[in-house]
Amino acid sequence: MAQGPVTETYGLDQEKVISVLNDVVATEVVCWLRYTRHAISATGIDRAQVAAEFTEHAAQEMAHAMRAAERVSQLGGQPDFDPTSLARRAHTEYTTPADHDLKAMLEQNLLAERIVISSYQEIARWLGNHDPTTRRLIESILEEEEEHADDLVDLLGAAI
Amino acid sequence: MAQGPVTETYGLDQEKVISVLNDVVATEVVCWLRYTRHAISATGIDRAQVAAEFTEHAAQEMAHAMRAAERVSQLGGQPDFDPTSLARRAHTEYTTPADHDLKAMLEQNLLAERIVISSYQEIARWLGNHDPTTRRLIESILEEEEEHADDLVDLLGAAI
Amino acid sequence: MAQGPVTETYGLDQEKVISVLNDVVATEVVCWLRYTRHAISATGIDRAQVAAEFTEHAAQEMAHAMRAAERVSQLGGQPDFDPTSLARRAHTEYTTPADHDLKAMLEQNLLAERIVISSYQEIARWLGNHDPTTRRLIESILEEEEEHADDLVDLLGAAI
Amino acid sequence: MAQGPVTETYGLDQEKVISVLNDVVATEVVCWLRYTRHAISATGIDRAQVAAEFTEHAAQEMAHAMRAAERVSQLGGQPDFDPTSLARRAHTEYTTPADHDLKAMLEQNLLAERIVISSYQEIARWLGNHDPTTRRLIESILEEEEEHADDLVDLLGAAI
Amino acid sequence: MAQGPVTETYGLDQEKVISVLNDVVATEVVCWLRYTRHAISATGIDRAQVAAEFTEHAAQEMAHAMRAAERVSQLGGQPDFDPTSLARRAHTEYTTPADHDLKAMLEQNLLAERIVISSYQEIARWLGNHDPTTRRLIESILEEEEEHADDLVDLLGAAI
Amino acid sequence: MAQGPVTETYGLDQEKVISVLNDVVATEVVCWLRYTRHAISATGIDRAQVAAEFTEHAAQEMAHAMRAAERVSQLGGQPDFDPTSLARRAHTEYTTPADHDLKAMLEQNLLAERIVISSYQEIARWLGNHDPTTRRLIESILEEEEEHADDLVDLLGAAI
Amino acid sequence: MAQGPVTETYGLDQEKVISVLNDVVATEVVCWLRYTRHAISATGIDRAQVAAEFTEHAAQEMAHAMRAAERVSQLGGQPDFDPTSLARRAHTEYTTPADHDLKAMLEQNLLAERIVISSYQEIARWLGNHDPTTRRLIESILEEEEEHADDLVDLLGAAI
Amino acid sequence: MAQGPVTETYGLDQEKVISVLNDVVATEVVCWLRYTRHAISATGIDRAQVAAEFTEHAAQEMAHAMRAAERVSQLGGQPDFDPTSLARRAHTEYTTPADHDLKAMLEQNLLAERIVISSYQEIARWLGNHDPTTRRLIESILEEEEEHADDLVDLLGAAI
Amino acid sequence: MAQGPVTETYGLDQEKVISVLNDVVATEVVCWLRYTRHAISATGIDRAQVAAEFTEHAAQEMAHAMRAAERVSQLGGQPDFDPTSLARRAHTEYTTPADHDLKAMLEQNLLAERIVISSYQEIARWLGNHDPTTRRLIESILEEEEEHADDLVDLLGAAI
Amino acid sequence: MAQGPVTETYGLDQEKVISVLNDVVATEVVCWLRYTRHAISATGIDRAQVAAEFTEHAAQEMAHAMRAAERVSQLGGQPDFDPTSLARRAHTEYTTPADHDLKAMLEQNLLAERIVISSYQEIARWLGNHDPTTRRLIESILEEEEEHADDLVDLLGAAI
Amino acid sequence: MAQGPVTETYGLDQEKVISVLNDVVATEVVCWLRYTRHAISATGIDRAQVAAEFTEHAAQEMAHAMRAAERVSQLGGQPDFDPTSLARRAHTEYTTPADHDLKAMLEQNLLAERIVISSYQEIARWLGNHDPTTRRLIESILEEEEEHADDLVDLLGAAI
Amino acid sequence: MAQGPVTETYGLDQEKVISVLNDVVATEVVCWLRYTRHAISATGIDRAQVAAEFTEHAAQEMAHAMRAAERVSQLGGQPDFDPTSLARRAHTEYTTPADHDLKAMLEQNLLAERIVISSYQEIARWLGNHDPTTRRLIESILEEEEEHADDLVDLLGAAI
Repeated sequence: MAQGPVTETYGLDQEKVISVLNDVVATEVVCWLRYTRHAISATGIDRAQVAAEFTEHAAQEMAHAMRAAERVSQLGGQPDFDPTSLARRAHTEYTTPADHDLKAMLEQNLLAERIVISSYQEIARWLGNHDPTTRRLIESILEEEEEHADDLVDLLGAAI
Repeated sequence: MAQGPVTETYGLDQEKVISVLNDVVATEVVCWLRYTRHAISATGIDRAQVAAEFTEHAAQEMAHAMRAAERVSQLGGQPDFDPTSLARRAHTEYTTPADHDLKAMLEQNLLAERIVISSYQEIARWLGNHDPTTRRLIESILEEEEEHADDLVDLLGAAI
Repeated sequence: MAQGPVTETYGLDQEKVISVLNDVVATEVVCWLRYTRHAISATGIDRAQVAAEFTEHAAQEMAHAMRAAERVSQLGGQPDFDPTSLARRAHTEYTTPADHDLKAMLEQNLLAERIVISSYQEIARWLGNHDPTTRRLIESILEEEEEHADDLVDLLGAAI
Repeated sequence: MAQGPVTETYGLDQEKVISVLNDVVATEVVCWLRYTRHAISATGIDRAQVAAEFTEHAAQEMAHAMRAAERVSQLGGQPDFDPTSLARRAHTEYTTPADHDLKAMLEQNLLAERIVISSYQEIARWLGNHDPTTRRLIESILEEEEEHADDLVDLLGAAI
Repeated sequence: MAQGPVTETYGLDQEKVISVLNDVVATEVVCWLRYTRHAISATGIDRAQVAAEFTEHAAQEMAHAMRAAERVSQLGGQPDFDPTSLARRAHTEYTTPADHDLKAMLEQNLLAERIVISSYQEIARWLGNHDPTTRRLIESILEEEEEHADDLVDLLGAAI
Repeated sequence: MAQGPVTETYGLDQEKVISVLNDVVATEVVCWLRYTRHAISATGIDRAQVAAEFTEHAAQEMAHAMRAAERVSQLGGQPDFDPTSLARRAHTEYTTPADHDLKAMLEQNLLAERIVISSYQEIARWLGNHDPTTRRLIESILEEEEEHADDLVDLLGAAI
Repeated sequence: MAQGPVTETYGLDQEKVISVLNDVVATEVVCWLRYTRHAISATGIDRAQVAAEFTEHAAQEMAHAMRAAERVSQLGGQPDFDPTSLARRAHTEYTTPADHDLKAMLEQNLLAERIVISSYQEIARWLGNHDPTTRRLIESILEEEEEHADDLVDLLGAAI
Repeated sequence: MAQGPVTETYGLDQEKVISVLNDVVATEVVCWLRYTRHAISATGIDRAQVAAEFTEHAAQEMAHAMRAAERVSQLGGQPDFDPTSLARRAHTEYTTPADHDLKAMLEQNLLAERIVISSYQEIARWLGNHDPTTRRLIESILEEEEEHADDLVDLLGAAI
Repeated sequence: MAQGPVTETYGLDQEKVISVLNDVVATEVVCWLRYTRHAISATGIDRAQVAAEFTEHAAQEMAHAMRAAERVSQLGGQPDFDPTSLARRAHTEYTTPADHDLKAMLEQNLLAERIVISSYQEIARWLGNHDPTTRRLIESILEEEEEHADDLVDLLGAAI
Repeated sequence: MAQGPVTETYGLDQEKVISVLNDVVATEVVCWLRYTRHAISATGIDRAQVAAEFTEHAAQEMAHAMRAAERVSQLGGQPDFDPTSLARRAHTEYTTPADHDLKAMLEQNLLAERIVISSYQEIARWLGNHDPTTRRLIESILEEEEEHADDLVDLLGAAI
Repeated sequence: MAQGPVTETYGLDQEKVISVLNDVVATEVVCWLRYTRHAISATGIDRAQVAAEFTEHAAQEMAHAMRAAERVSQLGGQPDFDPTSLARRAHTEYTTPADHDLKAMLEQNLLAERIVISSYQEIARWLGNHDPTTRRLIESILEEEEEHADDLVDLLGAAI
Repeated sequence: MAQGPVTETYGLDQEKVISVLNDVVATEVVCWLRYTRHAISATGIDRAQVAAEFTEHAAQEMAHAMRAAERVSQLGGQPDFDPTSLARRAHTEYTTPADHDLKAMLEQNLLAERIVISSYQEIARWLGNHDPTTRRLIESILEEEEEHADDLVDLLGAAI
């Protein structure tokens, strides 16, 4: 009974799912760090709309990290927020354009979002009907990451 | 990268999905027009409960149209709200009973909802796990359309 | 008594007013379609402020359509939302610049607003004191259309 | 200076306007009494929608009485709420159908609203541009009375 | 058309789904009764956090019962709240530890939640893509039941 | 001191009051089940106003059950929500008309409310000044049950 | 069963209670008229605090009238709002000091409140435990009338 | 008329009631002081739930003091908040266990609440129907004090 | 098209209207300055009600200034807030009684309001139906200025 | 580590600061008692504005007491609310003018506020940069006490 | 005692502080006028973000003026809002670029903010611990002015 | 002018302040990571109150990081959120007790808070009056860190 919500009908290797989710935690924290840094560093006449978008995305990435970490805990694991390994475990990088150019910032974040989207689509398909609760969590996060990518493409427009 | 949220792991023909979604846009706009017209034209001692239902449905159809149109844009397409082709592209018709009879109005809308439900169930199955974000969108709209059909059947009661 | 709010002191030809108001309904629905389309299709670094304006205008045009339609009903008519005749009955057109250029979008909407403003000023003067309730409705809508035109001119600035 | 807002540019006979407004006060209080009584006495399977309409109208009539009374005071008069003369001074009557029949109630209130609409249209025209503040007050009340009449006609439907 | 939202594209035996959902109704009502009883009966220095958890779970179980019952009605069935058969039809039992020991209460509820989780995972898989609306309902309830199990395990800690 | 709020000035047999209150708990839960069932099963053009009333009553019955159960606990007893004895312990029955006729539903609930009103009036008189807190609780519940009976009579109107 | 909430355990003459309550309705409406008139007519440097008190009392008197009228209806009677008999049926008078002196206004209202308090104390004692719901209604109104009297005495201070 | 709400139908010795209420004021202020002190001083792993309860009780005791003081004023007396006599006039004591032990704190407050409950039950019975407004005030305060005692007993549990 | 909302149907000399509105801007800013100063400087036992009125008026004058300035911009002009010419351009003066006497303050503001009322009535008549949007703006501001004058007269009472 | 927030960089004698803060607690409680008493006892035509001020001040004094007591606890002390020593420990007195004269009440409170202001200014200077958190607390309370003194002087006006 | 919050422990020359604060009042009003004018006059595709910033700053400058003026009054002075001397007394100028160029507007406001920041830093240092309440007021305003300067620099970006 | 809020009156070495603030950013992010991890991993009957405290602290640490980062940007620096150096730059460590023991968690966080308090007290003193805005920021954060330490000590109680 110490397994809590994981019963004999659970259809996957628990340890594997926990490990995948902990990478999601690391990825989302790094995205939060990058978006937050960019939101503050963005300057120029167009900074308002760009920073507003980055700030909104940052808040959602943070919420993703929390939801993934709580699912880790439900599955009997420990969420891994260790700062010494965050960068190594994340799917994407923490980067900043040298001159804080808005277009470069938009592109760096778009690149990261596209990597995240591909990863999460594959995770969702792998989870399938074996663990519907984790799959629905990933699909819900995926939906927001697709919106992020679209927001960034929209701001880049013909400049991409 | 101009593809935004559509990456190489996307599992469907983008153009086809956009076209299907644009028909959803047209269908929902026509439903909004029909429900709105009926809500205002309904008269008689029982108009209050019928108009309240139509008004609520109208607002939800409008929201469906907006969500489908935004998904079109995320997939790289242009949402099609062209009034000259709305009626032709919609799955259902804009009709009004000659005498504004409440029962006839309820039946016309129920008929339309049932057509929509069948269409959307098939779209959802076709999307499957290839594009989970679009599938979840359609499933979420479908859920509300089923509620609409139930609301109408409830008001018709034994009169159906 | 079936005339409801229309008494012997009503000072105009009811049918004529209903017809004028139904053209307002069509016009406002077409404006809503155009603004909504443009809000979603706008891209580029300046899309945020332009789309925000279009979205706000769209919501107000929709509210105008509803208020005009309800007035039609009060005067004993049937509001006309028929999608097959919307484009024909509207004072303005549903257009989109081929390349979704922001400046062109702003100009198309400004042109439409200016046509609407002229029409409504004439309608308001024609109604005069004969039907104060309809006149006040049109004046109130006119006020918002003038604000729309000003918002668009402001965004165009010296570029006009 | 004791005249407060009434300056030498005021264009009408103050005493006459005060008297007209005090009749509006009496009329609206009597309408409130009638609607309130009907809202409580209405019974039968259709009472909910009818009572809801009466209750809403009652609240608005009460607000009309207050606004007219405050205008009386602004023009230097005393608002007249004297219960011994309310019925005599009102434009409409306090009546209740013997058997509390819903249709009869709707008709009695519709009749009253139509009398009120005619009176207020004439008052508004008489005020014209001489006292824009009072005219706008009456036009604003008139607008709501027209909505009331329309609400009642809608519930009566073909039964009228 | 009397079938409402159930069209020819519906992929399952309606009667079977209704029966399964009515058992969910009974189960959730019994869980509500158990949690509510335990929330009130819990005593001791640690009662606050335990009762708060039970009260929150109780409210969610009640909401589950309502959503399942409404789905029964949408599918053309009658929701079954009959108190004489509730206990018999439920998947789990209504029990209370003789001495109202907090740890025993936590364990009884955890046991019940784990039974519910297994049942609902199987129902969700059985529904598959045949009836996406019912499947999404069950998956959504399942997600909350997994959270409940996790909450209880957390409070039991090493004591389990 | 383990008696909590029951001191030597308490004027009644504690066990007897607890027993009476536990029957109130059972009665209110059964009323909640009946009203909830009827709210969902009601159909026909007049279902909206009837279901709205049933839903509102259901929520209030549930609140009554909770308040009575909490008073049981304050008096040192255990609230009894046992589903196997709910129907037997309740003052009223869980019934549904075979054909879900609205008028029959209204009558069944009215009958139940009248039984409850008589019981509670007698309980209130018996409690008198001996236990003012329990008496005020019962009087407060009684007031709402009288409103329920009146709501039902109003909807039945001349049809009773 | 047409008696609604009045069962065989009801302990008083229904007609008598209805008659007493209808006098309460008339009294409270007249108080509302007086307070409202005084609130608007009060002038001078101290008018703000006096008018604020009158306006607050007026709103509460109106609420009292509504609650009494609804109780009349619950007991099977018809609430009597007839404007031609309001003044005659009320316990107190509609008066205004000739010169709108604040102190005189305060005294007139205080006198009225004290008459009302005495009447309602006697009504409450007469109702006793025979009809607890009506008695609690009167006691609740009485409490607010006592607060009104206290508010007025406070403003009069040593001037009384 | 300077008596305000106290008319010739008032059934008790005013001075006696004022004196009794002023002791209630002192008692409630002392309870507020004790609960507030304990809420801040409580420590240990279980302090959260205990301090939350004390803080909530403190706020309610303060509200009781205010309501009693306002009633004193309505009856023509002066509320007595004099800090030099608070401790002497209160029914209960301001005490703190030497070592801030949670269990001892709970017991001290429970003891105080039980004394208060007995006192207030006797006051309520003495007031009877002579002064319904004061009796209802005391009964309402009594209800909350009984809840306090129950809250404390619940936290003490088997430890009592 | 650079004219924005000003089309060929506009019925007045744009420059003249802009100039009139800029004087309104200056007038309202000066009123704001005067009311704000008076609200802070008012002292004495009656300062509360007087300062509350001044503060409320100040906020509304500020809003008037903003609305007039925005209309200037809509008509293609530049709003003029230049502090070096505010006093010269305003219709009314910035004055303060030497001894901050409340009565003198009330009179100074009343005098200013009456000047404003006369000016605005004439502006409204001049605008007529030529520019309904500007006329409605001025009428709406006029309504509030009349309320201000009435508020001040009420506080002056017989002292005027 | 049992010292909590007091580390080796703390720059003052902890016991001395605790003692000073406990006198603040006593002072603020006594101020609360005085203001509360005065707010209820104030009578006469000007009582509204005076009582409103006293009530607002009372609430703020209470909040000051709580904040000071919590700081005592943070510094490792026990807050002292003992009613038997409150009056002795407070900087100011609990006084009431014999005849409840408003002017005398205002003066008594003003005198107390001025004593408090002087004390707190000295405490703030003594704390300096040694304990910035306590200094900022005292400065923040001081700011509100200065506002209180100003409010009282304003109401006294030339009468001081 | 007429000195209100200024006691013998006040550490500065009152008249000097009042004079300094009245210059702050003038400065902030002029800033409000400049920002408000610029917010309305700004045009071009980037006006939205610039005008939003100006509007937010304007509201905060107005709040600064009010807070400084209220402190003047607390210190026994009269706030000086005289429009004839505003421009002369202000630290900064009211300027507008001839062509309403956004960049020029941003620079003019930045220049003004930097002057204000320097002045306020010196005022804060001069006040020191002599008058902590005024110093904290200035520090709090200074903090917002620094944010304003940063907002403007951010929008200017590399263009500065 | 590119210096924004940093003028010639700024009293410190900008680069040094930026560096100190960036260490605050790193410290607060690490605290957020630690508290968040502990809040999720805490188990056992006392987890609720401990996790609630950790979650609240985590949210405040995150806010501290944001405010410090924004100040870095105002002073012309770039906030440093780089995950590869977070752990190295922070004043405190990211640790978790091997067995997730609640007491050990509380102690680890208390130790970290005490280190932070000492650092921030020294930073505040160093900043002095040279940069009041940064000093007030640090003092405000320091205040919350002291509250955190107190919360943890309270939960540890005698167990420390």
